[in-house]
Amino acid sequence: MAHKLKVALLQETNQGSREANLDAIEAGLRRAAAAGAQLVLLQELHNGPYFCQHEDVAEFERAEPIPGPSTQRIGVLAQELSLVVVASLFERRAAGLYHNTAVVFDRSAQIAGRYRKMHIPDDPAFYEKFYFTPGDLGFEPISTSVGRLGVLVCWDQWYPEGARLMALAGADLLLYPTAIGWDPADETAEKERQRDAWVTVQRGHAIANGLPVLACNRSGFEAAPDGGRGIAFWGSSFVAGPQGEFIARAGDTGTELLLAEIDLARSEAVRRIWPFLRDRRIDAYADLTRRYRD
Amino acid sequence: MAHKLKVALLQETNQGSREANLDAIEAGLRRAAAAGAQLVLLQELHNGPYFCQHEDVAEFERAEPIPGPSTQRIGVLAQELSLVVVASLFERRAAGLYHNTAVVFDRSAQIAGRYRKMHIPDDPAFYEKFYFTPGDLGFEPISTSVGRLGVLVCWDQWYPEGARLMALAGADLLLYPTAIGWDPADETAEKERQRDAWVTVQRGHAIANGLPVLACNRSGFEAAPDGGRGIAFWGSSFVAGPQGEFIARAGDTGTELLLAEIDLARSEAVRRIWPFLRDRRIDAYADLTRRYRD
Repeated sequence: MAHKLKVALLQETNQGSREANLDAIEAGLRRAAAAGAQLVLLQELHNGPYFCQHEDVAEFERAEPIPGPSTQRIGVLAQELSLVVVASLFERRAAGLYHNTAVVFDRSAQIAGRYRKMHIPDDPAFYEKFYFTPGDLGFEPISTSVGRLGVLVCWDQWYPEGARLMALAGADLLLYPTAIGWDPADETAEKERQRDAWVTVQRGHAIANGLPVLACNRSGFEAAPDGGRGIAFWGSSFVAGPQGEFIARAGDTGTELLLAEIDLARSEAVRRIWPFLRDRRIDAYADLTRRYRD
Repeated sequence: MAHKLKVALLQETNQGSREANLDAIEAGLRRAAAAGAQLVLLQELHNGPYFCQHEDVAEFERAEPIPGPSTQRIGVLAQELSLVVVASLFERRAAGLYHNTAVVFDRSAQIAGRYRKMHIPDDPAFYEKFYFTPGDLGFEPISTSVGRLGVLVCWDQWYPEGARLMALAGADLLLYPTAIGWDPADETAEKERQRDAWVTVQRGHAIANGLPVLACNRSGFEAAPDGGRGIAFWGSSFVAGPQGEFIARAGDTGTELLLAEIDLARSEAVRRIWPFLRDRRIDAYADLTRRYRD
């Protein structure tokens, strides 16, 4: 009854230009396909540096329409290599209207679906509220030939609500393209707490929803354009199963093509022993739509 | 700016009778007070064995009113020892109407508040739906002299919704009296996955809500009254901080008084670097009150 799915997470460092990054992605997709992967998850905003370290209107030049040149290049590869690919782009929707958008291809150059990042962070060195309008497509899984993909993006990973809404809509997997890292000024113990929290909360979504979770994070140090301390992206991409168990883990530095095999049939087996969806108290959850219960 | 709170979790094995169990609890409360604890968390249904291993109407004899004899005995100790105590009882509310209820005392024999377990499990050897009417008091923290206590019970621990609703209502701590254990027939790897999932999902609630979590679990093997395999309660009670970091962990067998010091001021410090409550998409969460989004 096993239903195996071979996945690959392409954890990359910034190569210095869009073309160089897309060249590295193309090489990664070819390696993933050669290794038998059926689905490849790329990291957040993989076409360039993490430009949100400062607020500068010039950075909007990085945005592009969807469909556009990057989706065209990646789509052609998805078709040629017969891969499901989850990409992450800076979307120019209109003048003055931009999103942080994940795009899914299903073994075809056509776009199978998109997800616009719903929760937008803003804290020192992560000034995303300046760049990204919060998503308006809701939490909707994207149907593909390998299953329904519950694609979320980075800051979303801290929100049980997003994972739950994807699960309730029939997601088979939760997938997080991510760009998260350390402030080099933080102490080692604080750095470890942060990374461990990032891993743990996402494993928690796997457990609470009985679904595998894939998180693909950027790696490498990126200097701040404005003389700040920069960010040491911590890599540590991982795949967890529906009990939160680790299936594969990448290192915390450098490029890595993380391969893993997921048994999708295990999700239903786990949900039978732990039928959390059965017992949700939907009669008592109305206040989840309140800002605060004061 | 630290705001220290000394807590104790009394992880116990079943002693064979209500009087023996309450004697052990009294001894534990006295040790906790002598060690300087201000708050003591007891395990789920601490007055007896985990009787839900079978369905037998005779087990309803264990139920008692609240207030009743057990709350009287524990309340007197809470007052004498100047402790906040979180107890867990089989509540007889009316003939044919019973709950799995946590009761809080605030350095007084008076009951400060109660929480009736909202999510009720039912799976082999955990036949709780037979005994417990789902709670009707909602997810409301209980105010005490050491803070607002977000008391939840066992199966609730798998539900991010319960933890979130407590946080939104101003809880300062999340507390879980629990009785969870292994089926002795399961393989070691499965046992480890289960326990790790149980720890991880609760650490996830700490992280997602920026709050400390206390989980006090039963330990020891309890035979099945009906010739089943019994349950090996896995102990492993723990205290985690608002980034999910472990502050204290108990072993997986035997009685243990787990002491820990929590800095309540860290919750706000963590919420300032990770302001998850700020960015919740309450405009897009309405479907959380649906059974399934089909």
